[in-house]
Amino acid sequence: MAKFYGIGTGPGDSDLLTIRGKKALETIDYLYTPEPKKKGKSLALSIVSPYLPDNLEIKQRHFPMVNDLSVKEEAWDLVASEILEDVKSGKNVGFVTLGDPMVYSTYSYLLERLSNAIETETIPGISSFSSMSNILQIPLVMDEETYSVVPATADESVIKTALETFSTVIIMKVSVELPKIKRLLESYDLLDSTVLISNASMENESIIMGLTDLDETKRISYFSTMIVYKTREI
Amino acid sequence: MAKFYGIGTGPGDSDLLTIRGKKALETIDYLYTPEPKKKGKSLALSIVSPYLPDNLEIKQRHFPMVNDLSVKEEAWDLVASEILEDVKSGKNVGFVTLGDPMVYSTYSYLLERLSNAIETETIPGISSFSSMSNILQIPLVMDEETYSVVPATADESVIKTALETFSTVIIMKVSVELPKIKRLLESYDLLDSTVLISNASMENESIIMGLTDLDETKRISYFSTMIVYKTREI
Repeated sequence: MAKFYGIGTGPGDSDLLTIRGKKALETIDYLYTPEPKKKGKSLALSIVSPYLPDNLEIKQRHFPMVNDLSVKEEAWDLVASEILEDVKSGKNVGFVTLGDPMVYSTYSYLLERLSNAIETETIPGISSFSSMSNILQIPLVMDEETYSVVPATADESVIKTALETFSTVIIMKVSVELPKIKRLLESYDLLDSTVLISNASMENESIIMGLTDLDETKRISYFSTMIVYKTREI
Repeated sequence: MAKFYGIGTGPGDSDLLTIRGKKALETIDYLYTPEPKKKGKSLALSIVSPYLPDNLEIKQRHFPMVNDLSVKEEAWDLVASEILEDVKSGKNVGFVTLGDPMVYSTYSYLLERLSNAIETETIPGISSFSSMSNILQIPLVMDEETYSVVPATADESVIKTALETFSTVIIMKVSVELPKIKRLLESYDLLDSTVLISNASMENESIIMGLTDLDETKRISYFSTMIVYKTREI
């Protein structure tokens, strides 16, 4: 029976894909890819490009990055209905998504539109912050330690609780909220314990250890994440 | 130059290894594996066994699971000194560890003994809870949501803060603290929102959705993790 595969690509480097993800790419007929910009280049697609069979048909689809939920829902509905039709006609269909499909992914919205209608399988991927800590070779957690993952856009009180309570705190999507995050880290005297990584595992990867001198008014890459290591020397 | 590779195997299924992990296994001369019991069978070794070259020498080493830190340190010192000697003699050496090497792994203790003396590379792996959420196809986090990871052995106040503050809470190593965790979940009325997975992605995988009827005095697998989905229907 035909199937829909959601495939986590990992953070950027092609060889951080899982073997299961590679196998799925070899069995599909169509691959849908998310484009943040109209006619933009899909990063998820470029990550998996070394593994794509020659005869694979790629269907690049635009997912608008806007605040208007109804515009986003329209895009999800449209792509979900296309995928549904393809799978019902007997084609195996894949969708690639950066990092892990169950962590802050647009794929969630496709899945909730499809999982009751067709067979679906979701294949995990390496998250950006997992890749980051392995590049740094500084453990996220040992023994009884704890960690939390918060988007920079989360409520300030939640970020404060995270910084107060957990051994390690991962702050995602920091590019849009850099002044707020720098101020919070400063108030807990944690600037020197924080690493900022942009484009982890990609060619243009950049790592900043300690943020005291960081100019928070400067634009940084959308693919930027911080790890606050409260219990380690960085 | 010879190198030491720490390789995250992922949670259990061989094809959840990354392609980078597979490549590393193909370039090493010796593979060290951790044994929880003397003459026990290493799960990490069985996960990577499909990818091992015929001529690879496997060095199974015992890491005692005891409370006495000095006994554990003695084992880490011994294995680290063996690995150091192998790499200095020009051999590429690997060490396999379950899940991700930077998340609750004994590998951290080897790494801190070796990273200043020889070249080391650490290769990320899929964490058990990432695999779990992908098997369930229930997202860990979407949009502005947050999650945290706590071991069941952590301070009760930290687990409480996690359950009060975060959208999703992952509780690791629950087998040793089942009565305590069940009581805490009950006090927040979260038993029906919790999934217990044992042996995720392995042949004997078991999934319990909702823990109201769970007998907390029964022994469960050491490889058991809970996901508390506060904002989802499970």
